Amino acid sequence: MSFASIMKPKSVAVIGASTRAHTIGSDLMKRLVEYGFKGSIYPVNPKGGEMLGLKVIPTVDELPDGVDLAVVIVNAQRVLDTVDACARRGIKGLVVISAGFKETGAEGRALEEALLERVRSHGMRMVGPNCLGVVNTHPDVRLDACFAESLPERGDIGFVSQSGALGGGILNILKDLNLGFAQFVSIGNQADINAETALENWENDDDVKQILLYMESIANPANFRKLAERISKKKPILALKAGRSAAGASAASSHTGSLAGADRAADALLKQSGVIRELGLRELFSTAKVFSNCPIPKGNRVAIVTNSGGPGIMATDAVVSHGMEIAQLTDETKAKLKSFLPAAASVKNPVDMIASAPIEHYRQTVETVLADPSVDMVMVIYLPFLGLADTDVADALMEIKAAHPEKPIVGVFMTTSRFFVELADRHVSVPFYMYAEEAVDALARLDMQRRWIERPVGQIPELAVDAERARTIFKAAAAEDRKELTTRESLEVLDAYGVRICRSGMAKTVDEAVEIAERIGFPVVMKMTSKTTSHKTDVGGVRVGIRSAEALRREYADLVEKLEAKGLLDGLEGVLIQEMVEGKREMVCGIASDPQYGPMVMFGLGGVFVEVLKDVVFRLAPLTDVDAAEMVRSVKAFKLLQGARGTTPAQIDRVEETLLRISRLVSDFPAVKELDINPLMISEKSGEPIAVDGRIEIDAAKLS
Amino acid sequence: MSFASIMKPKSVAVIGASTRAHTIGSDLMKRLVEYGFKGSIYPVNPKGGEMLGLKVIPTVDELPDGVDLAVVIVNAQRVLDTVDACARRGIKGLVVISAGFKETGAEGRALEEALLERVRSHGMRMVGPNCLGVVNTHPDVRLDACFAESLPERGDIGFVSQSGALGGGILNILKDLNLGFAQFVSIGNQADINAETALENWENDDDVKQILLYMESIANPANFRKLAERISKKKPILALKAGRSAAGASAASSHTGSLAGADRAADALLKQSGVIRELGLRELFSTAKVFSNCPIPKGNRVAIVTNSGGPGIMATDAVVSHGMEIAQLTDETKAKLKSFLPAAASVKNPVDMIASAPIEHYRQTVETVLADPSVDMVMVIYLPFLGLADTDVADALMEIKAAHPEKPIVGVFMTTSRFFVELADRHVSVPFYMYAEEAVDALARLDMQRRWIERPVGQIPELAVDAERARTIFKAAAAEDRKELTTRESLEVLDAYGVRICRSGMAKTVDEAVEIAERIGFPVVMKMTSKTTSHKTDVGGVRVGIRSAEALRREYADLVEKLEAKGLLDGLEGVLIQEMVEGKREMVCGIASDPQYGPMVMFGLGGVFVEVLKDVVFRLAPLTDVDAAEMVRSVKAFKLLQGARGTTPAQIDRVEETLLRISRLVSDFPAVKELDINPLMISEKSGEPIAVDGRIEIDAAKLS
Repeated sequence: MSFASIMKPKSVAVIGASTRAHTIGSDLMKRLVEYGFKGSIYPVNPKGGEMLGLKVIPTVDELPDGVDLAVVIVNAQRVLDTVDACARRGIKGLVVISAGFKETGAEGRALEEALLERVRSHGMRMVGPNCLGVVNTHPDVRLDACFAESLPERGDIGFVSQSGALGGGILNILKDLNLGFAQFVSIGNQADINAETALENWENDDDVKQILLYMESIANPANFRKLAERISKKKPILALKAGRSAAGASAASSHTGSLAGADRAADALLKQSGVIRELGLRELFSTAKVFSNCPIPKGNRVAIVTNSGGPGIMATDAVVSHGMEIAQLTDETKAKLKSFLPAAASVKNPVDMIASAPIEHYRQTVETVLADPSVDMVMVIYLPFLGLADTDVADALMEIKAAHPEKPIVGVFMTTSRFFVELADRHVSVPFYMYAEEAVDALARLDMQRRWIERPVGQIPELAVDAERARTIFKAAAAEDRKELTTRESLEVLDAYGVRICRSGMAKTVDEAVEIAERIGFPVVMKMTSKTTSHKTDVGGVRVGIRSAEALRREYADLVEKLEAKGLLDGLEGVLIQEMVEGKREMVCGIASDPQYGPMVMFGLGGVFVEVLKDVVFRLAPLTDVDAAEMVRSVKAFKLLQGARGTTPAQIDRVEETLLRISRLVSDFPAVKELDINPLMISEKSGEPIAVDGRIEIDAAKLS
Repeated sequence: MSFASIMKPKSVAVIGASTRAHTIGSDLMKRLVEYGFKGSIYPVNPKGGEMLGLKVIPTVDELPDGVDLAVVIVNAQRVLDTVDACARRGIKGLVVISAGFKETGAEGRALEEALLERVRSHGMRMVGPNCLGVVNTHPDVRLDACFAESLPERGDIGFVSQSGALGGGILNILKDLNLGFAQFVSIGNQADINAETALENWENDDDVKQILLYMESIANPANFRKLAERISKKKPILALKAGRSAAGASAASSHTGSLAGADRAADALLKQSGVIRELGLRELFSTAKVFSNCPIPKGNRVAIVTNSGGPGIMATDAVVSHGMEIAQLTDETKAKLKSFLPAAASVKNPVDMIASAPIEHYRQTVETVLADPSVDMVMVIYLPFLGLADTDVADALMEIKAAHPEKPIVGVFMTTSRFFVELADRHVSVPFYMYAEEAVDALARLDMQRRWIERPVGQIPELAVDAERARTIFKAAAAEDRKELTTRESLEVLDAYGVRICRSGMAKTVDEAVEIAERIGFPVVMKMTSKTTSHKTDVGGVRVGIRSAEALRREYADLVEKLEAKGLLDGLEGVLIQEMVEGKREMVCGIASDPQYGPMVMFGLGGVFVEVLKDVVFRLAPLTDVDAAEMVRSVKAFKLLQGARGTTPAQIDRVEETLLRISRLVSDFPAVKELDINPLMISEKSGEPIAVDGRIEIDAAKLS
């Protein structure tokens, strides 16, 4: 039994069907019958008798052979027995509407676990529990097994809702917005079937042209990512992920940890999977409307046709703020527009036909602009004036659209909402909006999808790393019961993973010091290590900018001389020779783990004020090369890397590689709980990114 | 003749009245008559005869005595003569609908100037030209002198539109949204009457409770600011200022200049005047709706009552993202809610009454929550389920609102738009929205207005400055035809205006050097000034961190010795002794001038990357103390000033004072075209803000 067959059953049993008004058992039966399910319906209720012209079966055991879907509405306590009874009758698909499971606390959670076990052991698949039901509007199926207020409207959307009540509200609204759907699944507690099941099934289901998700949590983020990344290239996936404000980040000691949090993880996941995230239902529907009615454009150049200047300006503002372009119309186009528009009109984009524009001007102008090769999308603004009928203008646009299906056309009809209510009862092939900004938002989503489709598929590159060396360091710390690695250890782990670290070495003699310095490369810093540290400044314990072996010998001699003079030479244990990284640009990168989403990689502007400026970006590990490239380019500080104001351009490929290497580290060692490289200094000399300081926190329990 | 009397005429002449369908002259006459103007209407048309039951007067000269308003619809070329004729008949108020003026180019602009001169010389006042007309819905007036599609709806909004066509569109929509207005003025080219005239007149007009502005430009920014700042404390002013993307910033050489631009100026102006700026019409109307129906709350704590969990979560997300608080209900409230809500309900905010909530639960829950002293605003979410009628729930809320007018209540009705269309025909006293985010946006505006009302009135403080010293420096530069002041000059101007600059002095001898250093305070930097600069490094030409007179003498002697050894002592001209400002936090402040809005003050995070990070804020000069305090607190970098991560807390009052002093500088000297203080270093020692580098560009033509 698969998800697909739950959505396309030949016969349905409604266990808990009822004749009592305003109950789920009655409402659901009514919908099922009213919407004209193409298969057989078997209401099950101990009272027997008749219901909506159908014979009521008293018990599940009395159901005929071959029923393939059972909708379960009985009390939670009776659900398990019901499932067993269904199994005995060979039913393999379940939609459990009944509430009283995980959502009610520990007892309910146990009941749900028992239910799932039962379902699995019978080889069944289940939607729910605690859900609103399922709908399939395909004319061969016409399954409305849910209890929303309105009958479903046929369309091309596959819709998954995690909230039952909200799902119902949405079904009501969809029709109203001229948005039909192909299939709807209220996943409820998603014990078995979840958003991922739906995604996977809709991938090659031609009846579903776009997928909408309302989610409060993501069952299996890694699996979701794998599926969504692939499927979003074929059809748009829009998601409203609620719970943004839920306290996500717990007390974290690292920068990366303190900037992370569950919502940042969800956001990262959706971004790198090509899912278009909307923050409100209005935006979700607005976007769905444009995908239902428009092709994906070839570019981002927008032409605006209007009969009023003001909205044209507002539309321009919105286009620019989305980073799209105001199309530059060709001279031919302008000449043609001039030939029929009045002198007071403006033939420059936005094309202002002025208030008195008759319907012919709409027609001619839109067609002319559509034909312009420098235009990728057309937005038509209409304000009612002097007797033009709204619906006539709308019809004209729909005719033009039918003749020119290759470029997106959207309409802004700044008229009463009665127009939109009228539209709800008609077949509409152009997305109409009340306000210019909404229409531009919608075009921006088309453009976003275009860019996602054009985005190369990322690869997780092969990288040479020394996992054994890292493991040894982790194990040593774990053996000492330390969660925190020392700076030295942290940098060594990074070095083992090929991250370019600030080089250094301990020397006990001046010859060793020179040897180390020559290996590292000048200039270097020399730091005294002494049991008697109190007089460090007096004797010049830290000497920077040493540029040659000769200078190093001189500084060393001077140090020894000063120590001797103060009688402190005995305390000298040696000197730390460190590469002197000179740079003005401090970046940061790191790892933080979310309990639900797993490890994420962070990148951004570093230094001591990273948490104040928050110019950082997150992506879930493992990163692909494309993820890393996008991360680096998506922070404001990218301009610094490019070499703003006379600085050396950073080796950007090396920055990307650094991110890929720490991503590999946490993939190899899930025990890496948090990691900070701060600063990741951009060398002014070479443009190399160099880890100057690092700290790693491990979860020893996860060490293998 | 005043604006008020144009809006409340006793009799109106329509010059250019017509009987030809779908012309302005016919539509306007129809509206005027149909809406039931309380005074006399005189259509004027050479054809004479009758129109809508009124006698048509052939010429203006034949009008009776005492007509006080003329609506002019004649061809642009005939407008001037018409105005003269009106003057001859003693008419003092004009609404010029006719287009063909400034908006058409140079010729039209000249015509408009001539028109304005004529109007002024006759002692008349004029709305327009190129406008849609005026409306006053007061029952004693009932003036609908415009040609929008719909008759006006009575309400409390005063509405000014700069775009004619858009204004008309808006009038259509307003009714649809249950938004009525008191007065409407389409100011068109705003040759005489503009938004400021309306503001001033509506300040004490009780019929207007809130003011909405659609603007593409602001006639007189300084005057607008003065009026709006005062009036917005009495009634909300909402503005949609279009043209955000218009290329504003021209090629500017300073940081401040390159970050400025006309829209930043407009935004600053609106912010510091207490005007609530909306970026789209939907938001403008949504906000107007909440102000029409809700009192200003006492605080920012929001309670959410819902029958569905999902929208409750979304509302919570939105409340938190606006910086408002989710109210913590008292234990009493929770106990009371528990007493009547079912066990499955959640009595914690958001209060989830669950899908089956009957209307009594809505009633009891909302009343209980309203009574909670820890609740400032209540948001009620309703999704239709199991037979509840939308309008019944709406009526219940309106009854509760009538009984509890002291706290804002908003409704989220996630139902079909038919519900909203039905509302348009009823009297509605609660703002209803379709989506949770819209309702929260609206509550956030109430909260914004609350904070504005509570904001103290700012003062421009008295500051001791040495204007003469600054003037001398400016004049000297102007005399040399220099637009750019040198760093030295720039810092001296700042010093004259009491800005704390990095202190320094030139010394020719070691005694002078010590004297200067003691005046400045140690530590200091010593920089050699020599005709032979090439060997500066070899001899240690720049010596930093000199911490005492003794050390200074030693360094000086060492310098002389090294110069002597190299035979370079002759070249030594002296040494520059500079205060050594040690700080980690580089801020920036400055001045830029917009051709239309005048000088603005900028403040933010400085250093070399100011333009990359753009953590800056602008306000128009002159700044009040409150403006300065808000500026400093509104950048992310404010946390740095407070002493993040172990830095010395900055002297924030001194930072504010610095902004006030440069504001004073540009007020005294409009010739200051651009000014940058970058960095304004926060001293790690004292927390003082110190201007380490400064540059000033002047416009000599403006020097007085």
